[in-house]
Amino acid sequence: MAEMKAVQFAKDNGTRFVGELLELLRIPSISTDPARVEDVRRAADFCAEELTRIGMEKVRLIETSTATRKGHPLVYAEWLHAAPAADGKPKPTVLMYGHYDVQPAEPLDEWKSPPFEPEIRDGNVYARGAVDDKGQMWMHVKALESLFSAGPLPVNVRVILEGEEEVGGEGIAAFVREHGDELKADVALVSDTEMFAPELPTLCVGLRGMIYTEIEARGARTDLHSGMYGGAAPNPFVALAQVIAKLKDEDGKILIPGFYDKVQAPTADEFKAWAALPFDEEHYRETEVGSTELTGEPGLSVMERTWARPTLDVHGMPGGFIGAGAKTVIPAKALAKVSLRLVPDMTPAESFAQYKAYVESICPKGIQLEVRLIHSGDPIVVSTDNTFVKAATEAMHSVFGKETVFVRGGGSIPIVGDFVRELKIPTVMMGFGLPDDNLHAPNEKFHLANFHRGIESIVLWLAALGA
Amino acid sequence: MAEMKAVQFAKDNGTRFVGELLELLRIPSISTDPARVEDVRRAADFCAEELTRIGMEKVRLIETSTATRKGHPLVYAEWLHAAPAADGKPKPTVLMYGHYDVQPAEPLDEWKSPPFEPEIRDGNVYARGAVDDKGQMWMHVKALESLFSAGPLPVNVRVILEGEEEVGGEGIAAFVREHGDELKADVALVSDTEMFAPELPTLCVGLRGMIYTEIEARGARTDLHSGMYGGAAPNPFVALAQVIAKLKDEDGKILIPGFYDKVQAPTADEFKAWAALPFDEEHYRETEVGSTELTGEPGLSVMERTWARPTLDVHGMPGGFIGAGAKTVIPAKALAKVSLRLVPDMTPAESFAQYKAYVESICPKGIQLEVRLIHSGDPIVVSTDNTFVKAATEAMHSVFGKETVFVRGGGSIPIVGDFVRELKIPTVMMGFGLPDDNLHAPNEKFHLANFHRGIESIVLWLAALGA
Repeated sequence: MAEMKAVQFAKDNGTRFVGELLELLRIPSISTDPARVEDVRRAADFCAEELTRIGMEKVRLIETSTATRKGHPLVYAEWLHAAPAADGKPKPTVLMYGHYDVQPAEPLDEWKSPPFEPEIRDGNVYARGAVDDKGQMWMHVKALESLFSAGPLPVNVRVILEGEEEVGGEGIAAFVREHGDELKADVALVSDTEMFAPELPTLCVGLRGMIYTEIEARGARTDLHSGMYGGAAPNPFVALAQVIAKLKDEDGKILIPGFYDKVQAPTADEFKAWAALPFDEEHYRETEVGSTELTGEPGLSVMERTWARPTLDVHGMPGGFIGAGAKTVIPAKALAKVSLRLVPDMTPAESFAQYKAYVESICPKGIQLEVRLIHSGDPIVVSTDNTFVKAATEAMHSVFGKETVFVRGGGSIPIVGDFVRELKIPTVMMGFGLPDDNLHAPNEKFHLANFHRGIESIVLWLAALGA
Repeated sequence: MAEMKAVQFAKDNGTRFVGELLELLRIPSISTDPARVEDVRRAADFCAEELTRIGMEKVRLIETSTATRKGHPLVYAEWLHAAPAADGKPKPTVLMYGHYDVQPAEPLDEWKSPPFEPEIRDGNVYARGAVDDKGQMWMHVKALESLFSAGPLPVNVRVILEGEEEVGGEGIAAFVREHGDELKADVALVSDTEMFAPELPTLCVGLRGMIYTEIEARGARTDLHSGMYGGAAPNPFVALAQVIAKLKDEDGKILIPGFYDKVQAPTADEFKAWAALPFDEEHYRETEVGSTELTGEPGLSVMERTWARPTLDVHGMPGGFIGAGAKTVIPAKALAKVSLRLVPDMTPAESFAQYKAYVESICPKGIQLEVRLIHSGDPIVVSTDNTFVKAATEAMHSVFGKETVFVRGGGSIPIVGDFVRELKIPTVMMGFGLPDDNLHAPNEKFHLANFHRGIESIVLWLAALGA
């Protein structure tokens, strides 16, 4: 069968594939750094050239820009010649997404080997971008190359790569919104998540959404001296503290009326699956969080609390005096940056409206509050009954030799929401990173065995979709 | 009588006195600005030369320094030859305090005339330092000159001027602590307060004390992603909000157990006097505070709330993300800068101990709190039965032709506390500024009629103390 030939090709060429990845990792494509604009473009060109070489068509860079600056380019490629099935039914089209930009590498002195001089140690490649997302993106390209080596692709494929994932991804969001017809597909593949544990094939089938907000509290017209006015003038920080303390109780329950009305509990199958995951709460507290205790709603597992329950966090409270020492000011205004994570079937619009109305209803005396939405994202849940997910489950099972587990993610991957909203397609989140891969941190790595298993899993998945 | 001769001298020389003040105001002695070190010293020299010229003795600059930098000099002068009374009782010694440094003048474009080019308009001199404190300090010097013109001084006098009042006054505090014997006196005079209303002779007979603190909240070991960990990791800002909301209720009552135990209510006389002051709460809210409502303990007057009741304010909450836009971080730590104003007979040590114990007792789950004292100051109350205050009351009454009112200040003047603690002497706070003199703000001014009345009041006061 063609897919076995493709898998053999991937095995035979694995060393070359790694060598190419190392070349890509040497390009410091740090999207947030204005000094690296040319390097980012070099990484885009590198990907485009390889997509052309392996047989993809209409390969091109798509320029992007935002209101404030010129953006980094998207890379597009397609191959849409999959022969229809015997019954005349066309083969599905798969949209393969990845990003070729990386986070900054600071603090540099914590790296054991330089971030842009990839080094292989103990079966891992260490470099900025190794797993997030160059290594995982390269799996996609190499899976396609392997399939091409065995004949025509089993499905239609579009590839879209972005160079701004680490700086907000505005460019691709606008492109999906405005040129969705150019990305028409039946399913998307994103490899930007992680495996729950080493050797455990994992599919992510849900992501929390969010609303990120600012509450601005204004009291006196100008900053006042706390000696002269303390006891008469409203203090916007005290007011914000009172508001925040009323937003969430000490058990982590959000107190906004109606906020939980649309919350869907995970299915019994999910609960069962999560309970079976290898997870030691005390180990997680000690090694991942490092706090004296964990917080959140009592009686719920960490998985449920971080994957399937709404939460509220405060990220910073700008305003007033933040220098060393003392300044006796009653600031005229203060801000709180507050985000709330949402879960299916909550919607950002309704949740924000509930939040805003509640915050305004508890506005302290003498204070004027303004509640602003900075950005939002929909919660996502992918049915595990979905054909595409089922095929992915089986593909990973066959490569890893273990049952595939289903997890959710607590954060959001905005592009997945964009694909649902604009393209009306589900996304298969098949990721091959490990929890200790140091994403966004020094000594980022990618386990090379997972790089190879990722390529094989994707080959098998695409073949299954075409069968 | 000698004092009438001195008053006449002051009247005859008033124009010259103002001219000298303008000269002093031209020196940009901004103590916080490293580029102005020489100007600050020039202002000190200017004062020292004049003190010498009028007949003061042992005039000298006293160098100061702190752990972090060389300080600006103190100016010292004395005249200790007042003849004892007929019964052989020595005349009292008066310590006259002022400061010759000024605040920065920014924002410069809001000044109608340049801050260091004094201009007289409508009977006011406009310049940085006009009222705070060069103009008021110069009243002291000119009162002494006027008395010298009429013969020997009626009392013994020491003058101490500082050049760091606007940057914390560490130098003079250290000098008072270490060389108190060189400042031995019976009473101090400070003219750095204001009159309650135009034409209303005012003595300040009480100041609030304070403890300025930081609460540091630590949760996770490092900053975490709020998507991945929200719902399990403690959030130090939420924790601080919960703590602050429990420190003070929505009526402004501080909830620290025992905190009000030592609070002395103002005397019936004080309440009566405050009720008689010309004060329109609505006007104060609108023009001074500018908030939609005033806050603080219900049923108490603004005077009582700001002068005679403890309060709590939050000045800033450093930590986390304070940039524009969104960052989904659960910060590992956050700070709150919290100060509490104290009133007689509270003590900073006991109040801080109560506060710290209470904050620690309400520490939220998963959080470690550290409560630090940044600095503190004692509350001050000067008995109005005091001979020195009585004499000041009468002196001002006779100059202004109106009953002198007693007020307190909500803030603290640390040097007054130093004089009480280190020198064991009371301070007469006889200030001639007006509420709209724009201290620390653009278009600072001093009403020249008050400059002249201040000189006469001080002449009469010193004469009365010597009688």
